[in-house]
Amino acid sequence: MMKKLVLTGAAGRLGSYLREPLSKMCQELVSTDIVDDIGKLYEGESYAKADVAVYDQIAPLLEGADMVVHFGAIVDEKPFEELLGPNFVGSYNVWEAAYQHGLQRVVYASSIHAVGMHKKSDFIGIDAPHKPDTFYGLAKCFSEDLASMYWDKRGLEAVCLRILSCAQVNNTRALGSWLSYDDLIQLVTRAIDTPSVGFSVVYGVSNNDRAPVDNAKASFLGYRPKDNAEQFAEKILAEAPPVDLKDPGQMHHGGPFAAVDLGESGVASMNIVNDKKTT
Amino acid sequence: MMKKLVLTGAAGRLGSYLREPLSKMCQELVSTDIVDDIGKLYEGESYAKADVAVYDQIAPLLEGADMVVHFGAIVDEKPFEELLGPNFVGSYNVWEAAYQHGLQRVVYASSIHAVGMHKKSDFIGIDAPHKPDTFYGLAKCFSEDLASMYWDKRGLEAVCLRILSCAQVNNTRALGSWLSYDDLIQLVTRAIDTPSVGFSVVYGVSNNDRAPVDNAKASFLGYRPKDNAEQFAEKILAEAPPVDLKDPGQMHHGGPFAAVDLGESGVASMNIVNDKKTT
Amino acid sequence: MMKKLVLTGAAGRLGSYLREPLSKMCQELVSTDIVDDIGKLYEGESYAKADVAVYDQIAPLLEGADMVVHFGAIVDEKPFEELLGPNFVGSYNVWEAAYQHGLQRVVYASSIHAVGMHKKSDFIGIDAPHKPDTFYGLAKCFSEDLASMYWDKRGLEAVCLRILSCAQVNNTRALGSWLSYDDLIQLVTRAIDTPSVGFSVVYGVSNNDRAPVDNAKASFLGYRPKDNAEQFAEKILAEAPPVDLKDPGQMHHGGPFAAVDLGESGVASMNIVNDKKTT
Amino acid sequence: MMKKLVLTGAAGRLGSYLREPLSKMCQELVSTDIVDDIGKLYEGESYAKADVAVYDQIAPLLEGADMVVHFGAIVDEKPFEELLGPNFVGSYNVWEAAYQHGLQRVVYASSIHAVGMHKKSDFIGIDAPHKPDTFYGLAKCFSEDLASMYWDKRGLEAVCLRILSCAQVNNTRALGSWLSYDDLIQLVTRAIDTPSVGFSVVYGVSNNDRAPVDNAKASFLGYRPKDNAEQFAEKILAEAPPVDLKDPGQMHHGGPFAAVDLGESGVASMNIVNDKKTT
Amino acid sequence: MMKKLVLTGAAGRLGSYLREPLSKMCQELVSTDIVDDIGKLYEGESYAKADVAVYDQIAPLLEGADMVVHFGAIVDEKPFEELLGPNFVGSYNVWEAAYQHGLQRVVYASSIHAVGMHKKSDFIGIDAPHKPDTFYGLAKCFSEDLASMYWDKRGLEAVCLRILSCAQVNNTRALGSWLSYDDLIQLVTRAIDTPSVGFSVVYGVSNNDRAPVDNAKASFLGYRPKDNAEQFAEKILAEAPPVDLKDPGQMHHGGPFAAVDLGESGVASMNIVNDKKTT
Amino acid sequence: MMKKLVLTGAAGRLGSYLREPLSKMCQELVSTDIVDDIGKLYEGESYAKADVAVYDQIAPLLEGADMVVHFGAIVDEKPFEELLGPNFVGSYNVWEAAYQHGLQRVVYASSIHAVGMHKKSDFIGIDAPHKPDTFYGLAKCFSEDLASMYWDKRGLEAVCLRILSCAQVNNTRALGSWLSYDDLIQLVTRAIDTPSVGFSVVYGVSNNDRAPVDNAKASFLGYRPKDNAEQFAEKILAEAPPVDLKDPGQMHHGGPFAAVDLGESGVASMNIVNDKKTT
Repeated sequence: MMKKLVLTGAAGRLGSYLREPLSKMCQELVSTDIVDDIGKLYEGESYAKADVAVYDQIAPLLEGADMVVHFGAIVDEKPFEELLGPNFVGSYNVWEAAYQHGLQRVVYASSIHAVGMHKKSDFIGIDAPHKPDTFYGLAKCFSEDLASMYWDKRGLEAVCLRILSCAQVNNTRALGSWLSYDDLIQLVTRAIDTPSVGFSVVYGVSNNDRAPVDNAKASFLGYRPKDNAEQFAEKILAEAPPVDLKDPGQMHHGGPFAAVDLGESGVASMNIVNDKKTT
Repeated sequence: MMKKLVLTGAAGRLGSYLREPLSKMCQELVSTDIVDDIGKLYEGESYAKADVAVYDQIAPLLEGADMVVHFGAIVDEKPFEELLGPNFVGSYNVWEAAYQHGLQRVVYASSIHAVGMHKKSDFIGIDAPHKPDTFYGLAKCFSEDLASMYWDKRGLEAVCLRILSCAQVNNTRALGSWLSYDDLIQLVTRAIDTPSVGFSVVYGVSNNDRAPVDNAKASFLGYRPKDNAEQFAEKILAEAPPVDLKDPGQMHHGGPFAAVDLGESGVASMNIVNDKKTT
Repeated sequence: MMKKLVLTGAAGRLGSYLREPLSKMCQELVSTDIVDDIGKLYEGESYAKADVAVYDQIAPLLEGADMVVHFGAIVDEKPFEELLGPNFVGSYNVWEAAYQHGLQRVVYASSIHAVGMHKKSDFIGIDAPHKPDTFYGLAKCFSEDLASMYWDKRGLEAVCLRILSCAQVNNTRALGSWLSYDDLIQLVTRAIDTPSVGFSVVYGVSNNDRAPVDNAKASFLGYRPKDNAEQFAEKILAEAPPVDLKDPGQMHHGGPFAAVDLGESGVASMNIVNDKKTT
Repeated sequence: MMKKLVLTGAAGRLGSYLREPLSKMCQELVSTDIVDDIGKLYEGESYAKADVAVYDQIAPLLEGADMVVHFGAIVDEKPFEELLGPNFVGSYNVWEAAYQHGLQRVVYASSIHAVGMHKKSDFIGIDAPHKPDTFYGLAKCFSEDLASMYWDKRGLEAVCLRILSCAQVNNTRALGSWLSYDDLIQLVTRAIDTPSVGFSVVYGVSNNDRAPVDNAKASFLGYRPKDNAEQFAEKILAEAPPVDLKDPGQMHHGGPFAAVDLGESGVASMNIVNDKKTT
Repeated sequence: MMKKLVLTGAAGRLGSYLREPLSKMCQELVSTDIVDDIGKLYEGESYAKADVAVYDQIAPLLEGADMVVHFGAIVDEKPFEELLGPNFVGSYNVWEAAYQHGLQRVVYASSIHAVGMHKKSDFIGIDAPHKPDTFYGLAKCFSEDLASMYWDKRGLEAVCLRILSCAQVNNTRALGSWLSYDDLIQLVTRAIDTPSVGFSVVYGVSNNDRAPVDNAKASFLGYRPKDNAEQFAEKILAEAPPVDLKDPGQMHHGGPFAAVDLGESGVASMNIVNDKKTT
Repeated sequence: MMKKLVLTGAAGRLGSYLREPLSKMCQELVSTDIVDDIGKLYEGESYAKADVAVYDQIAPLLEGADMVVHFGAIVDEKPFEELLGPNFVGSYNVWEAAYQHGLQRVVYASSIHAVGMHKKSDFIGIDAPHKPDTFYGLAKCFSEDLASMYWDKRGLEAVCLRILSCAQVNNTRALGSWLSYDDLIQLVTRAIDTPSVGFSVVYGVSNNDRAPVDNAKASFLGYRPKDNAEQFAEKILAEAPPVDLKDPGQMHHGGPFAAVDLGESGVASMNIVNDKKTT
């Protein structure tokens, strides 16, 4: 059992799901986010308010930790200026602090939007070249390259989880891209318990019949998702609007992010409407 | 639910299996073939006699349709002259008519024989170069290239189903190449209900332990076959004749078609002897 | 020295350039085309009027030949119906006749238009998948697949020369795609004198600085072009009209053929305007 | 049913597991090894003492056989001189004898150590280049190349089983590399009953969640393992010592063999401590 | 001839070489840098002091321009904080301004250090995955991904010139990595005069016998370097210090940058010591 | 300048060409072979009779050397038993001795016959999988794998020179496969003077128009051959016998070695008949 884990973005939708399982994998879980309070804590968990964009706030929390699970960032498309602090500098801060404090590994919430402009009919593997669809995706590219460099130059490991869409299944794209909460937890668990990972990338997607990405080259991580969005297919397909074959959002992995203009208020929120889980 | 589907080759062995499931996916199913009559019709189905080799016969049937499922062709190796009309010109007629009438998609019965001269020990993917084994296979190559062009130039979608062998399992090759009727129906259903497909190719093969082809790159279609010819393996292997390692039919994906001379009466019929289904 | 060669399309622009060099490689050159007369003959050359679309006209000419150089076809985009005879059936006739008469090899004028819908910025090799841009290109795909099959099944060799543009350099595309007449002759010579070729494909392009295709995998043929269109670059670039980045003809290997609608009178003639050579 | 099979290395740990299932696949099983006696024989089985390093001892046993299952060799890292006879010359003897006596196929116990210096995070397929980690692994490379040559030149088939680790799961590497005894038996069975195999390579690994190698290209063999080492993961991971990221044994497919010096007494025995099966 | 070009980094070592040739390719060249003055101007050239890190300084200069040649950045490894403004935000500013003012293209001075941690013995192409060796290289990765996105989403073209080492040849690495000033000029010229480029990457290296990178896939750009560092080989090799095979700088494309710690004052200056050209 | 080099096989045809140039690259050249005497010595050269198959004879010669150039072996196809000593054990002896005496590198005369069963129309790179055509070729495979292992495990560098055919050009195959003596010398020089090479493979072939193999991935070595067998093409082609397309020697890289039976007295001598150079 690990001594200490740090979770950034602990107040976010995905982060809030991870707090309990992470608390069971270590003696001490330090959850952090920019809110004042995240409510009732799990056994072994403490909460510290900190802004990942500010090195002096985030770095001290990593002291003595084994690994950091880095989910803290703005989770929608925004103008570059707004993402620069939390999504770009924030990643630098986390990796640099992890190195300075001798952590073994960063587990990072990357995203399909790092490769979102690939065509959906291309079954991209984890080695598909970067092809971001938004500034949001560009920040994921930046962080993955940063992760690669810290491994090559300084021996700090990283697993970059390219999450497709972790929210209620309510459109045809999600029949392929869905990551269930249980599979998210398995994914993060494998990213932590695999003894050595170097620099690794893995798609965060459930065992959907229509999953459009290829995790074969990350097989050694042992991530074997169990859920399958096909259970929702009949209803979703019956209610789906007519397809517009000229809509870039239909034809690319990034979905709606492939269609919005750069920096425009994106569609992450659309995807999670009706999601009963509130954190 | 779709408004109108057209099925060519409706009186053929595979076509006859598809009539009922297709009739349930649309308000109106127009079945067509060159026979006078295909017997009792399913709800919503009508039958129209037409020769795919004659544009003016086939084209009018596509008016108002959403998609056409094109299975109508001669299904055995024959001299080039005999295949030219139904298998080559017929494909052109279907695609051109589909374009002229504004259909979204053609679902096409292609075949392993488009790539039948690849070695069986090569686990070919959907992007294996064409390597036809017969004039029959050459017509499939022609139609796939035609399909690619209509998508690139005119935005008409296509799914090319490279069927391996859809018939009773009665030889060792079929332990790998079998496509069960249920899996055929799933395959055609996915080819229709996937919202956008561009130009896609997928192998029609069941979930056989010994399946020799790779559908990974067509994963987004969500075709997940359920049947497995391994149930027949013990009996088939026990009764199999000695292997002739110099027989091209043993060593290539095309099986017996890889061994017959071009234009010679082929072996499609051999494969289906004892098949109890009669249409 | 070969005993007998046959050249189809001998009255065409490219064919007329090949007559003299071919006449020197064999004791007997039989030139054929659909015109009544091709003028003065070279030593060892005879002319026979024949339509490649008619087996009984073309087949007898191949009797006793070692190889056939097949350039006879309509060389522009036309409706499918117009190309079916000369460009599709014509190829079948030539290969079948070559096989029936025991020739060693067919040297075939294929075209970049067999792969014309690939993006120009993709440095496509000789194994790029077919991606035709026109019915004209589709006929080249058909013939290449036919060639592959006659080699695999019947041991009849073929070299398919995917010519890019063999005409005066008068637009920016031609700075990359130009094939000079001298290099054309070298290309055909290599396709004939290489002792064994199996089924081979090679791009017909000069040694242009901006050549956009990759002949590496055909290196054993020893085709090493000498001419370079860069000599025309300064003038052509200075006079070039503004680029329209949304024009498919700008962005794809097929050039203007990638932009015309299928079957529309094409642009082959545009490319050769001002070409002083008349045959 | 086969007439005669020969099993070398019949007294070894893996060989002893194979005797019973092999005895059921043929009328006559000849087991051989260098010990005097292997105990009670199965129905149809006979035992012959012979040294694979001596042609005249091993060759006569193959007379009249259909196939030979070649597991006889030193199964640990040793100085080159010690392996030269049994592991190098022994393979030559088996293939040459198999050819001289007209056998159809050699089924060979190769090993992950033929490719052991590839990084564990590379999901290597069966076509990964040789990258041996020990003289033991070098002998496997030698034998695979020999097998390839006897197929290409003499038509003698071979299946090379690259076994990962077939022993009790008692370390984290084995969570990925485990081959259960049942799956070993299925693997050898498929290697025998597949009608034609040419020269094939397949990894011997169970259906572990964390399996680090890719058998996709050997799919036609129909090897579908059933066991999964994940059942042991919780206990193994809880007891695992801290990871040393600079230990070559942690980061490469060969595991401890990637870390020992060449010729040093290896670690095969470490892997099987506590293994209750004794032969 | 172009109407207006903008050159950033005009006072830098490479920028200063480009001013004259660029001034001849357009009616108006706007050179910009952070120094007060760049000395005598070429015909058609004007100078404007501006900081690329400040959008409001750099953006107005691009108004009315056809293309911008972006060489302005810190050209050595520095702490991330120091590079953030000029090398990261500066690139964003240039692309965003180019888009806002409707330019056709950005020509960008990228660097081998975007892929510097690849092994030197890997002949990496232009599609090698990012593998930065420094924060300096990370900024190049960021800018290339930004460039890819602006093309995919907004149709703004880019050519990223991955310069290896453009300085005097004074060490063994430079025998492979040298880019002569003349070849630099040709490279930038091609990046400008090629009619359409989409998003392209090309290595900036001369025609050295020992060039370690592969520009094949950028062939359509027509960059054909003329100089060859082999002229310096005899002297350089004779004087070279003994090789340390454990030095990461010896074994990776990034050379000394692959060996320095992140953020440490780098070695760009070392490479150019003795360089007589002063600007 | 190197202190000491060792050359094995110094009395062989190729070895004898290398003695003079090697003697100029070092202060001391130790030439060795199994003959008593190699005639007049070059400045700095000494001769020592030793059998590479005997460790105690060859090992002492390497003491104090920087590199060993290993050309000593039987250079024709022979029964496995005859090659085992000189070609297999000899390589082990050289590498082991090189490691024991702390040499930096082995330069090894490998051969096209390590990959001779690839089809000639496949433009194989240096990473083509082993596919030996003879026991002679198998020994080259063995030595290359040994070389790879000594680098990975012990940091001993190697360059494996896969020589195609270094002899007079007197058949059509040699138009592609010829390695001139001058180019051989350049090749060995580059293999020595490149500062770091790790484990490298490079084809030994001249700059022939018809060269059938691809050295792109060894570009960093800077081997740029100057000679071109095309100068002999006209004469050779005019005199060439008719091609037999069913002859494996015509269709594979190994040429005649692809056609001889294993262990049969081969054809190396045929290739060099009429070769005026005698040593």
